[in-house]
Amino acid sequence: MSGYGFYQRASKAYQSHPHLYKLLVICTVSGGGLLGFSDGRTAHADADHRDIKQKKKKVVVLGTGWAGTSFLKNLKDPGYDVQVVSPRNYFAFTPLLPSVTNGTVEARSIVEPIRNIVRKKKFNVQFNEAECYKIDTQNKKVYCRSIQDNNLGVSEEFSLEYDYLVIAMGARVNTFNTPGVVEHAHFLKEIEDAQRIRRTVIDCFERASLPTISEEERKRILHFVIVGGGPTGVEFAAELHDFVIDDLAKLYPTLKDKVKITLLEATDHILNMFDKRITVFAEEKFQRDGIDLKTGSLVTKVSDKEISTKERATGQNVSIPYGMVVWSTGIGTRPVIMDFMKQIGQTNRRVLATDEWLRVEKCDSIYALGDCATINQRKVMEDIAAIFSKADTKNTGRLKVEDFKEVINDVSERYPQVEIYLKKKQLKNFVQLLKNSQGDDELDIEKFKAALSEVDSQTKNLPPTAQVAAQQGAYLADCFNRMEICEKYPEGPLRFRGSGRHRFRPFRYKHLGQFAPLGGEQAAAQLPGDWVSIGHSSQWLWYSVYASKQVSWRTRMLVVSDWGRRFIFGRDSSRI
Amino acid sequence: MSGYGFYQRASKAYQSHPHLYKLLVICTVSGGGLLGFSDGRTAHADADHRDIKQKKKKVVVLGTGWAGTSFLKNLKDPGYDVQVVSPRNYFAFTPLLPSVTNGTVEARSIVEPIRNIVRKKKFNVQFNEAECYKIDTQNKKVYCRSIQDNNLGVSEEFSLEYDYLVIAMGARVNTFNTPGVVEHAHFLKEIEDAQRIRRTVIDCFERASLPTISEEERKRILHFVIVGGGPTGVEFAAELHDFVIDDLAKLYPTLKDKVKITLLEATDHILNMFDKRITVFAEEKFQRDGIDLKTGSLVTKVSDKEISTKERATGQNVSIPYGMVVWSTGIGTRPVIMDFMKQIGQTNRRVLATDEWLRVEKCDSIYALGDCATINQRKVMEDIAAIFSKADTKNTGRLKVEDFKEVINDVSERYPQVEIYLKKKQLKNFVQLLKNSQGDDELDIEKFKAALSEVDSQTKNLPPTAQVAAQQGAYLADCFNRMEICEKYPEGPLRFRGSGRHRFRPFRYKHLGQFAPLGGEQAAAQLPGDWVSIGHSSQWLWYSVYASKQVSWRTRMLVVSDWGRRFIFGRDSSRI
Repeated sequence: MSGYGFYQRASKAYQSHPHLYKLLVICTVSGGGLLGFSDGRTAHADADHRDIKQKKKKVVVLGTGWAGTSFLKNLKDPGYDVQVVSPRNYFAFTPLLPSVTNGTVEARSIVEPIRNIVRKKKFNVQFNEAECYKIDTQNKKVYCRSIQDNNLGVSEEFSLEYDYLVIAMGARVNTFNTPGVVEHAHFLKEIEDAQRIRRTVIDCFERASLPTISEEERKRILHFVIVGGGPTGVEFAAELHDFVIDDLAKLYPTLKDKVKITLLEATDHILNMFDKRITVFAEEKFQRDGIDLKTGSLVTKVSDKEISTKERATGQNVSIPYGMVVWSTGIGTRPVIMDFMKQIGQTNRRVLATDEWLRVEKCDSIYALGDCATINQRKVMEDIAAIFSKADTKNTGRLKVEDFKEVINDVSERYPQVEIYLKKKQLKNFVQLLKNSQGDDELDIEKFKAALSEVDSQTKNLPPTAQVAAQQGAYLADCFNRMEICEKYPEGPLRFRGSGRHRFRPFRYKHLGQFAPLGGEQAAAQLPGDWVSIGHSSQWLWYSVYASKQVSWRTRMLVVSDWGRRFIFGRDSSRI
Repeated sequence: MSGYGFYQRASKAYQSHPHLYKLLVICTVSGGGLLGFSDGRTAHADADHRDIKQKKKKVVVLGTGWAGTSFLKNLKDPGYDVQVVSPRNYFAFTPLLPSVTNGTVEARSIVEPIRNIVRKKKFNVQFNEAECYKIDTQNKKVYCRSIQDNNLGVSEEFSLEYDYLVIAMGARVNTFNTPGVVEHAHFLKEIEDAQRIRRTVIDCFERASLPTISEEERKRILHFVIVGGGPTGVEFAAELHDFVIDDLAKLYPTLKDKVKITLLEATDHILNMFDKRITVFAEEKFQRDGIDLKTGSLVTKVSDKEISTKERATGQNVSIPYGMVVWSTGIGTRPVIMDFMKQIGQTNRRVLATDEWLRVEKCDSIYALGDCATINQRKVMEDIAAIFSKADTKNTGRLKVEDFKEVINDVSERYPQVEIYLKKKQLKNFVQLLKNSQGDDELDIEKFKAALSEVDSQTKNLPPTAQVAAQQGAYLADCFNRMEICEKYPEGPLRFRGSGRHRFRPFRYKHLGQFAPLGGEQAAAQLPGDWVSIGHSSQWLWYSVYASKQVSWRTRMLVVSDWGRRFIFGRDSSRI
């Protein structure tokens, strides 16, 4: 009798021929009426098979979030020996975290094991489930310790050597040192946070159902407070409202009217980074839904049962009893990154500064991307003399506008703020900018300076979003893939201060739009070109994009089928 | 603009017309090639709508496992006011717990909120997420405390009064007071246990992957020990083996050959309660799979890294290093039940004793069912004189065999061991038993005693299984539904010691068979009439039965779709 049955053999066949099931799942997804388009990358397909003669370069990647995973997925050059260190052995599709808090989507549907992502690579990738606690730039080493449950043995410490280090460790929640937040509030950054929130919501409803709870206490327990009116906080508030209305109202009919959801925002409006129309729509929708939106409300303290705020309008201090607080106010720097910043002399900064090629300033072989880093865009004014002299090939000290033609493209590429400035001033090109600024056709350095004087005001920091991190990861992998070739044939802009060209083009972010799901099958979308879409259609767009952006066919199918389950059966309220 | 979209309205419509989606899911399930038969009970459909004049009787149900939930599902008489107390606000389909440990099935797919089960009842059912810590029979009260997370406030204590108490609290794991088990071993009784095991298995693999782990330590960490060769232990060992071979071997290729699974069993064989053929098949399959089966091995101690056993054959004490121990050796009594037993004088028993109507002995209005109780079957010999005198209507002291005709059915009903004995001795009926035992046609009490003297040897305790608990719950609910009518028109057997008849027929267990999944798409099934089925076909039978036995259409669809997911994508190994 054979040890394997038909079912198992068939299952094995399926799993080793992914194209078969991709087809299958395309049918499933399309059948569900969704735009199931795929990014269609087969990460390793065109990897080079050439024989590597030289010793492989050691790359250590810290983190498996959007930036780290995107880097790993896109790295194809077999000339590297890659070590990955992360306390999480999976990648999580974090934009769906608010959905996990209420069971619209299951936690396991939005995660993919890192080993599954890297196992088909043609080169060696070693994953280590551990946290990095120290970076030693002198000896080119990172120090790590294991994070497995301690009953397997004491924490295991080890170090890894690197030739290149890729720091993609993300950020932690910023509590602004508000007392009591760490002890009493829930965060919404990790999968575990979302699972814990889900349990706590049910805990609140179950406790409020107990026979001896007083009416006042019941109201307290069912008061859900969200701090922070950014996309995550707003989406969580909306999801929680839906969960209560759609599902919990049926199971806890007597409690339905006692639930209160409050959203506290320190500034004047929620969703500040979005178009004004979206903010207005969201605020009106929340009002209709009965979500209590308190703007201009700064949280000063969180105790075990009360949250204290200072109201900007009145200057009053208010204390509100609560059952659960979710803190979602922005990001802070991880301790290990702070240590590292001290080590390399970046002491006066909030996050790790890199150049436009994602290289950490003053550290040649260390790269940082995602939420733990920010690009310190070089100002045009810093290099103004160098630019002028590059154009001034004859060293005359006076140049015609046409003489700048040689360097225009390089300036635009090197300093993206130039293009933004031109767009804002509705100028066609750089030449027009120079021409506009004065009557005559010739410029000296002072006039050149004057013409460009306001350009740097358009320098912008990129937002700490999944989209930025993913693009940075893909960009950096691309650089790593073409390291050798670009060494020989540099493709970047002119080095204005030095000679020759930069090896690579600098990183350029391409904004593809942003969503704000508002509950009740409503979403707002802000797409490139200031195109704003609000309502049901946006919700469907949201479903399509989020389904298509999943990291694997597995998670794609799971997320879509979770939505189907929710549609048919509602959300589960078991406390597990 | 309306607050609800089409999608949401449609979803609501679906959720409030369950028949529609039942149809839908039948298609889904049948499409998957499964025998999707349903038990088809619509729990409330035929509930009585009569007006209840008298004050409603208070029923308190402790526990929401198989027994408690089955009781609640089948209770239809609106004449009760029901309070349910359980630390779990859901029912879990426990036979699939071993599948949850490896992700073949997700935890959430096998649970159903109790509030969802009872919310369509025509009478008041109040659920309390709390644990009962004391039963006060004097004042007819149970004392409970809340189990929600303490950051919502201190533990809430309350008491509930009852007219009828239904104890269905299940059992806890029996460690046989083996030192170190509670501290170091995993159990497999609750959903949380299964989730913890899943995380620990991944922890072991991740830790074994770390670069500084020695070869010896790696072998230790990857040594999985299961204690107890009952159905749960055997199924877990088989599932773990499949998980390693099918999924983890791909993701941790270097560790594949270092994994060792050991099953320790104190007696001579695993699966003792099954047919010998099944035991042999399972033992041979385990040998082929490389699962190390150690029978006659009694665990004496579990330390943090070693498990110590005493080998019966050699008398030697052996210590084996391990990475994870799963303890699955049988059940013990919960402390609150032990307290209760002391209170009512059942001090010398292992579990709560009830009569054949599931009433706790010496407690008129308290019932106990499922794993926390056992039926103390009355012996024929105890009542032998009473039976004789019931038949001896003319008080002659000597009776012909025919004279027993009047009481034969009642005796068979009251003492199920009689029928088992007849079957075993291959006797057609009771008359034959009496005739066989002596030559002549007349019996006095002594001869009657002699004829029945061996009958009681066939008294058997019911096994602590889901099947028994579910049947007891349904039986008790049926009694409660017909309490009034049976008071007037009793349908049970004659009261041999008293006068008249018992109100109800005693509980009679109907064994529907038992499965032992053995991994690799193999299962063994032992069906009534000693029909044994082993192999792939049994695995499909197992799938069909487990799919059909799910508590709701929701869990049914989830479980089936989890199997589908596993078939296509394998099991997930993310550590969440």
